[in-house]
Amino acid sequence: MIGIAAIIGGGVIGGGWAARFALMGWDVRIFDPDPEAERKIGEVMANAARVFPMLYEAPMPVRGAITYVGSVAEAVTGADWIQESVPEQLDIKHRVIAEIQAACSETAVLASSTSGFKPSELQQDAARPGQVMVAHPFNPVYLLPLIELVPSAASDTSIVTRAKQILTGIGMYPLHVRAEIDAHIADRFLEAVWREALWLVKDGIATTEEIDNAIRYGFGLRWAQMGLFETYRVAGGEAGMRHFMAQFGPCLQWPWTKLTDVPEFTDDLVDLIAGQSDAQSGHMSIRDLERLRDNNLVAILRALKQQGAAAGKLILDHDTALRGPLGAEIPLVTVRRVVPVDWTDINGHMNEGRYGQLFSDASEEFMTHIGADRAYIAAGHSYFTAETKTKYLAETRAGEDIYVTTHIIVADGKKLQLWHQMHRASDDALLANCDQFMLHVSLETRRSCPPLPHVAEVLNRLADAHAEADQ
Amino acid sequence: MIGIAAIIGGGVIGGGWAARFALMGWDVRIFDPDPEAERKIGEVMANAARVFPMLYEAPMPVRGAITYVGSVAEAVTGADWIQESVPEQLDIKHRVIAEIQAACSETAVLASSTSGFKPSELQQDAARPGQVMVAHPFNPVYLLPLIELVPSAASDTSIVTRAKQILTGIGMYPLHVRAEIDAHIADRFLEAVWREALWLVKDGIATTEEIDNAIRYGFGLRWAQMGLFETYRVAGGEAGMRHFMAQFGPCLQWPWTKLTDVPEFTDDLVDLIAGQSDAQSGHMSIRDLERLRDNNLVAILRALKQQGAAAGKLILDHDTALRGPLGAEIPLVTVRRVVPVDWTDINGHMNEGRYGQLFSDASEEFMTHIGADRAYIAAGHSYFTAETKTKYLAETRAGEDIYVTTHIIVADGKKLQLWHQMHRASDDALLANCDQFMLHVSLETRRSCPPLPHVAEVLNRLADAHAEADQ
Repeated sequence: MIGIAAIIGGGVIGGGWAARFALMGWDVRIFDPDPEAERKIGEVMANAARVFPMLYEAPMPVRGAITYVGSVAEAVTGADWIQESVPEQLDIKHRVIAEIQAACSETAVLASSTSGFKPSELQQDAARPGQVMVAHPFNPVYLLPLIELVPSAASDTSIVTRAKQILTGIGMYPLHVRAEIDAHIADRFLEAVWREALWLVKDGIATTEEIDNAIRYGFGLRWAQMGLFETYRVAGGEAGMRHFMAQFGPCLQWPWTKLTDVPEFTDDLVDLIAGQSDAQSGHMSIRDLERLRDNNLVAILRALKQQGAAAGKLILDHDTALRGPLGAEIPLVTVRRVVPVDWTDINGHMNEGRYGQLFSDASEEFMTHIGADRAYIAAGHSYFTAETKTKYLAETRAGEDIYVTTHIIVADGKKLQLWHQMHRASDDALLANCDQFMLHVSLETRRSCPPLPHVAEVLNRLADAHAEADQ
Repeated sequence: MIGIAAIIGGGVIGGGWAARFALMGWDVRIFDPDPEAERKIGEVMANAARVFPMLYEAPMPVRGAITYVGSVAEAVTGADWIQESVPEQLDIKHRVIAEIQAACSETAVLASSTSGFKPSELQQDAARPGQVMVAHPFNPVYLLPLIELVPSAASDTSIVTRAKQILTGIGMYPLHVRAEIDAHIADRFLEAVWREALWLVKDGIATTEEIDNAIRYGFGLRWAQMGLFETYRVAGGEAGMRHFMAQFGPCLQWPWTKLTDVPEFTDDLVDLIAGQSDAQSGHMSIRDLERLRDNNLVAILRALKQQGAAAGKLILDHDTALRGPLGAEIPLVTVRRVVPVDWTDINGHMNEGRYGQLFSDASEEFMTHIGADRAYIAAGHSYFTAETKTKYLAETRAGEDIYVTTHIIVADGKKLQLWHQMHRASDDALLANCDQFMLHVSLETRRSCPPLPHVAEVLNRLADAHAEADQ
């Protein structure tokens, strides 16, 4: 579904929510009393608009409108999703929830971005407690799919079910937390790690940069794709999880962490950490760091998507859901997308190899269109490319909107020749073209053979229409 | 440098060390009294040999020999690096270290894989304490670059310096831990997270799968590329690290974690966790999971390498260090590599787009050879591809060894035409060819112009030699 989202409280988190909803086609109304809110959210939106579409091969929905409004009531009236991201103080949250419920629809989702409070705490004294739940996102909200969705026993299950559907629809993963606890699940780990990190810095064992390196060159890479338990299951080797636990269980008793104690939060400690962080990353602005982080996340997520694994599998499924059938235009528009950051090279433009991938994607879309889709391939037939001739006419850069048109030149038995043209969306300029000659093959014999009748029939009808259009 | 490595104690960790050394050209001698050691290490080696070369575009060194020997003395005599990976019991480690030092060279590196013990503990009663240090790796050792290198005050600094050079030489990142503490750095975090995870499962808050999803769909993706502090620096937004700490410092006082306490390690808890882990991942064998993990890690590391970021930057630098100049053969051999897992598609073979990338890589190597290298590009000139004609003659799969030969067809002023042929290494079968037409350009005007004299001169000389070879 596509609807109206009300964002109460901007900042990095509220802005991230606004960006994700708007980029998935929702109209978004924002209320934030901060006079700087529009500029701040605009910057988050600009970051999001650059990178979020790079996760998808499917064309993006038409972007929703973003409106800044003057009151909570104006934002939430008629909204389908209301996201509260005001400061982490319970009295403020209670006041805002009361204001929201005075004006919003009774069936709307009313979710809080809180990382610490339980839904039952937020529901205290609410007009309709059953409407309130936690939907805790992770920064950057426009790239990380995780949402901890935490209802309380008082929450209305039909609203919770709808909340899950909506989150899935905007490409997020609702992790339904079945028992409410302080800090939900993920932040319990983050707090534990943060405390230990403060001790290591305070005691002079490691600097902020050394700690970051210990994470990103080691277990961070494991956790990005398998998390904790599956990683340890593999580490246990042939004997599996039981063996791993028998081996490492006793270590729990070792006095390895200082987590029984909290370092005093003095100015000296803040200075020490802020100073080390400046030495580590101070040569880059926060904007530079955000770009770097977002480029890396896009590259990692696309790599996992190509493998069909972990968070990449979520994006692959969402991408599939976003794809509609091709239109009936001649020539066919087979691809509409942006150029992602992992497609450019040392010359700063799209690498020639990625033109090959783009035209390969175009022919895959064409194949789906004529019925030679994934199921057809799984059943044992496919088209293999035998020869391509590609002309590179103009440069293309990351972030540019492009589209590909595809025309049938020859469709004759096992032979198929397509003519792809790649255009810049902003001015329809021709950027490249590709003459692609393919052969239909049996995946069993790996030899050429005619396509199955239902594919041949669609293909021949389409080829006639394309030939007629040429005259 | 390339030398001899002695691996004392096999298993997953010792096997991982053996694989990394052997794949980087070192001869490896292994001593492990387990009668199953050779089979177990052989399986780790097979995993490593499949994926480790996929991290590199450079050709791999000739693989070192792996020998299983009958005693510690036989393994360590004349070895340059000795890696102890025996069980985590201090008395066993002391005994093994004594045996090693009775036979090894005084200048060899003697490193322990221990995750818990301090180097000063290992050095107790050693014949030459200064030779002993900790080099703590992370599973899978053949893919994750992190090594916590921990000397004590008694350690010989010249041996520590050499240890760092050797680790860098085999593609690892030695994190020099300056103050020895129990569990070094990374495992303090791992222990903290493990304890919290046990509580969450024991208390029925979350299952093993839910916890893994909370990590891999959220902060795991952040940590894989920036770690903890740089992530929070960005989260602090424009106000930076000081703001972040002011905002989240007080939360430390909240009773969010149960880390002050250790769950009792009962059979019930082991059954609960092992049962949930079976439900989550039991449909896959450990071998399947290892393949999945390794494919994902290769894909993530290659994505970060393409961005020149985080652990990918380490691999990029190592890749550059591994590349020698091209030989003088005609035609030139411009690429020698394996097909990585991220190059294949739904048909199970190398995607046509990746042929384009391969031939683009071949011409980039060619460019370096004629002096149109990264420095030349940075100074404002490059070659852009205008047209390619590619024939796909046979299928290629992930893991296959391939090479590309490159021949000059035309080198005339700003015009350059290359003829690439891609071969399978095992039987020299021709897999594909590419006729590539390029233009030399100014990166300022983005228009064609003749190459600078030093490049033109090398190119013309080479073109004459290639033309002569054709006659």
